[in-house]
Amino acid sequence: MSETVFKGVEIVGTSDQSFNHAIEAAVARARQTLRELSWFVVEEMRGGLQKGRLEYQVTLRVFFKLESDDSAGPGATLV
Amino acid sequence: MSETVFKGVEIVGTSDQSFNHAIEAAVARARQTLRELSWFVVEEMRGGLQKGRLEYQVTLRVFFKLESDDSAGPGATLV
Amino acid sequence: MSETVFKGVEIVGTSDQSFNHAIEAAVARARQTLRELSWFVVEEMRGGLQKGRLEYQVTLRVFFKLESDDSAGPGATLV
Amino acid sequence: MSETVFKGVEIVGTSDQSFNHAIEAAVARARQTLRELSWFVVEEMRGGLQKGRLEYQVTLRVFFKLESDDSAGPGATLV
Amino acid sequence: MSETVFKGVEIVGTSDQSFNHAIEAAVARARQTLRELSWFVVEEMRGGLQKGRLEYQVTLRVFFKLESDDSAGPGATLV
Amino acid sequence: MSETVFKGVEIVGTSDQSFNHAIEAAVARARQTLRELSWFVVEEMRGGLQKGRLEYQVTLRVFFKLESDDSAGPGATLV
Amino acid sequence: MSETVFKGVEIVGTSDQSFNHAIEAAVARARQTLRELSWFVVEEMRGGLQKGRLEYQVTLRVFFKLESDDSAGPGATLV
Amino acid sequence: MSETVFKGVEIVGTSDQSFNHAIEAAVARARQTLRELSWFVVEEMRGGLQKGRLEYQVTLRVFFKLESDDSAGPGATLV
Amino acid sequence: MSETVFKGVEIVGTSDQSFNHAIEAAVARARQTLRELSWFVVEEMRGGLQKGRLEYQVTLRVFFKLESDDSAGPGATLV
Amino acid sequence: MSETVFKGVEIVGTSDQSFNHAIEAAVARARQTLRELSWFVVEEMRGGLQKGRLEYQVTLRVFFKLESDDSAGPGATLV
Amino acid sequence: MSETVFKGVEIVGTSDQSFNHAIEAAVARARQTLRELSWFVVEEMRGGLQKGRLEYQVTLRVFFKLESDDSAGPGATLV
Amino acid sequence: MSETVFKGVEIVGTSDQSFNHAIEAAVARARQTLRELSWFVVEEMRGGLQKGRLEYQVTLRVFFKLESDDSAGPGATLV
Repeated sequence: MSETVFKGVEIVGTSDQSFNHAIEAAVARARQTLRELSWFVVEEMRGGLQKGRLEYQVTLRVFFKLESDDSAGPGATLV
Repeated sequence: MSETVFKGVEIVGTSDQSFNHAIEAAVARARQTLRELSWFVVEEMRGGLQKGRLEYQVTLRVFFKLESDDSAGPGATLV
Repeated sequence: MSETVFKGVEIVGTSDQSFNHAIEAAVARARQTLRELSWFVVEEMRGGLQKGRLEYQVTLRVFFKLESDDSAGPGATLV
Repeated sequence: MSETVFKGVEIVGTSDQSFNHAIEAAVARARQTLRELSWFVVEEMRGGLQKGRLEYQVTLRVFFKLESDDSAGPGATLV
Repeated sequence: MSETVFKGVEIVGTSDQSFNHAIEAAVARARQTLRELSWFVVEEMRGGLQKGRLEYQVTLRVFFKLESDDSAGPGATLV
Repeated sequence: MSETVFKGVEIVGTSDQSFNHAIEAAVARARQTLRELSWFVVEEMRGGLQKGRLEYQVTLRVFFKLESDDSAGPGATLV
Repeated sequence: MSETVFKGVEIVGTSDQSFNHAIEAAVARARQTLRELSWFVVEEMRGGLQKGRLEYQVTLRVFFKLESDDSAGPGATLV
Repeated sequence: MSETVFKGVEIVGTSDQSFNHAIEAAVARARQTLRELSWFVVEEMRGGLQKGRLEYQVTLRVFFKLESDDSAGPGATLV
Repeated sequence: MSETVFKGVEIVGTSDQSFNHAIEAAVARARQTLRELSWFVVEEMRGGLQKGRLEYQVTLRVFFKLESDDSAGPGATLV
Repeated sequence: MSETVFKGVEIVGTSDQSFNHAIEAAVARARQTLRELSWFVVEEMRGGLQKGRLEYQVTLRVFFKLESDDSAGPGATLV
Repeated sequence: MSETVFKGVEIVGTSDQSFNHAIEAAVARARQTLRELSWFVVEEMRGGLQKGRLEYQVTLRVFFKLESDDSAGPGATLV
Repeated sequence: MSETVFKGVEIVGTSDQSFNHAIEAAVARARQTLRELSWFVVEEMRGGLQKGRLEYQVTLRVFFKLESDDSAGPGATLV
C-alpha cells in the first residue's frame, strides 16, 4: 500500500568549529546505522564554554523511512 | 515493584485520504514491532501538495510499557 | 575525531510517592540497557487520580553518548 | 453597555471513530448545560491504544457568552 | 491548615475602545459572582474588524481563592 | 453511548514544604466537590519569597468525568 | 543556481463537515492563484458554534516555490 | 458553496503613544488595500528605546475574506 | 504622520552548503521584488537528507516598510 | 571592530492605570542606571486583583548596548 | 510614587537529592546578595547522569523589588 | 557543600559575517567580565537588512558559576 511511515530519532551533534559541523557530525553518525534518512529538524542549539573553549552542540530530530516488512534488519526496526 | 516505566517513540504516518488514516497507518506499523502500546500524542500535522496531490502527514509520539526484565526480547528494549 | 554524538530517548517514569521517585524509576530503568547516560530533561509532569489514588508521572528525555563504532553492541546502536 | 464577556471551559471528548466524532461528542455534551456557545479551540489531540483499540481524545476550549445579569440561572454563572 | 488553594477561570472581555477597557469589563463581570479575586494573566489579544469597526478582545485567566469549607455558597465551589 | 466526556479545571495549590505537598493540597481540595477525578497536568511551578519564607505554588489542570445525565448534581455540571 | 526559494502564505479554510474538508477548501482556493504548491502545515484548529451549528476552521501555512525570474507573473511574486 | 476561505497577513504597526495607537495605525494601513477585513491577532509587542524615546511596536496578523472569484482585483488575490 | 507600518513575509531559503547560505539565498530573492527590507527573524531550521545529500532549509520572516501611499507600485502593496 | 554586543535585563513594571503606564515606569527605572537603552520586548502581562483594586503588571526584557571597554563604569558591566 | 518596579535574574540551582533542594540552594544563594526577594518561576528542570550519579538541576527566575533610589548599594542596582 | 549555583545572563551578539561570528563576539565580550563561563543556549536568531546590508544577530543565554563566597569580586555577584 502507498502509506509510508517514518520514524524520528533525536541526536545531539557536537563540534569545536560551528553548528554546521555539529549537524554534519550528527548526520554522519546516523548514516552509519540508519537507512533511508529523509529529513531533519533543528531543535536546539547550545554550547559548552568550560575552560575557555567554545563547543557547539546541536540537537536534531532525524527522520527515516520505515520499511513495511520489519524482517529487513536492525536498521529499520521501530524500537 | 509497582513503578511502571513507558517509552515514547516518534512516528510519522502518511495517507492520501485523511489525517485519521495517517494516524491509523502509523499505529498499525507500530503494532508490528511494539508490544503493550498505551497511548499516543499528535505532535504535528502537515501535508504534501506537489503535483496536484494532497498527502496528509501526521507526527505522533507513541508510548508503550517497558517490561522491567529486558530479557523479554527486542520489542521491549530501551534503545 | 573529537566530535561526540549523543542520542536522546523519551521515557515516562511513574510513582505513587513523588515526582522525584518517578524520575529515579525512569533513570534506573534506562541504566539497565543504556550505557554512558549523560543528562536528562524533564518534559512534562502529569498524574493519575483514578479511584482515589495519586500517581505521579514524569516524562523525561534521557541522553547518552553514542560510541563511534557501532560494533559495540545493542546498547549503543542508533535505532 | 455593549461590552460582551465570554467564558471558556475545557472539555475532553472521546470517540472510537475519529477526532471529528470526539469533537462532536464534546460539543453535544456542552450544549446540554451551556447556552449561547460561540466558538471552540482545539488544544490537544491524543489517543488511547490499550488492548488493541484506538480511542481518539481531543481537548477543546469551548467559549460561551456570559449574560450580564447572573440571575439568569446556572448555565450562565461564572464558576 | 495554611495551604491555600486557588481556582482559575478563563474569561474573554471585549471593548470598542482599548485592551485596557476589555480587561476592565472582564474583571468587572468576574467580580459579580466571584469573591476573593487574586490575580489575572493575559493569555491572548485579538480583535474583530468586520464592517469597519475595531473591537478589542482579550482572553484572561482570573484566579480566586477557594474557601476550604465549600458550604460557603456558589461563589466558592470548584465546578 | 460509549463516548465519554471529561472536563478540566485549573487549580493552584500552595505549600510551605514542597511542590509535592502543593499538588496534594490542590487534589485534596478538588476531591471535596468533584467526583470521578481522572488525571492532572502540571502547568506551572512558581513560588513566593517575601519576608524570608519560601512558598511553593503549583498550577494544575485537573480532569474529571462528566456524567452524561446532568441531573446528577452540582459536582458534575459543566459550568 | 540550485538554491530554491519558497514562500509561505497563511490561509484559513472553513467547512460545515470536518477539518479535512476545511483543509481541502483552503488548498483548492490556493491552487486557483498559486503555482507549484509544495507543502502545508496545520497551525490551528478552531470552530464556530453560534446558533447550534458546528463550523470547522483550520489555519494552514501553504508553501510554494518562487520562480527565480519574477517576470513570470503575479502568481510567483513575493508580495 | 458555503466554504469561506480567509487569508492572513503579518503587519507591524508603530506609534509614539501606545500599543493601541500602533494597532490602529496597522489596521488603518491594511484597510487601504484590503477589503473585508475580519479579525486580527496580536503576535508580539516590542518597542524602540534609542535616544531617549519610547516607540511602541506591535506585530499583528490581520485576516480577510478571500473572494472565491479572483477576478475581483489585486486586493483579493492570494499572493 | 510618523507612524511607520511594516509587513512581514515568510520565505524558505535552501542551500547545499550551510544555513548561512540558505539565509543569503532567501534574502537575495526577497530583494528582487521588495524594497526597503528592514529585518528578518529565523523561524525554523530543517534539512533534506534524501539520497545521501544534506540540504539546509531555513524559514525566515522578512519585514519591509510599507509606503503610506500604495500608488508606489507592486513592491509595496499589502497583499 | 564593528561587532556590537547588547545585554538584556528582565524588569517588571506595575501601574494602577494601564499596561502602558507600567511599561513607562519600567523603562524610566531602567534609564536611571542603564545607558544606551536600545529596545524592549513585552514578555508577559498579568495583574493583581486583591481587595477590589486592579494593578497592571508587565514583564519586559530591556536591551542596551555594552561598551567594548568595560572600564566605562558600572552601567555597562556585564553582571 | 506607587509604581513599584521589580527585576528578574536567572539562577540554576543544583542538588544531589531533589529538585526541591536545588530550588532551596538557588534561593539561599540569591538571598546572600539580593534584598527584597519577591517570587520565583521554575523555568526548566534537567539533570546530570554522568558516572552513575543523579544530579538535579533547576533553572529559576528570581524577582526582587528595585529600590527607586539607586544610591542604596550594589544589591539594588539594575545591572 | 557541594551544591553549585549558576547564573544566566542574556547577551545579543552581532556580526556582518555569520551567526557563528555573532556567537563568538558575544562569548568574547562575556569573557571580559565574567569568570567560569559554563554553557550557553541560543534563544533567537534575527538579522538587520537595512540599506542592503545583512547583519546577523543572535540572542544567547550565557551561564556561569557563582562563587559561594560573594566577597570574590564583581565578576561573581548575583546582580
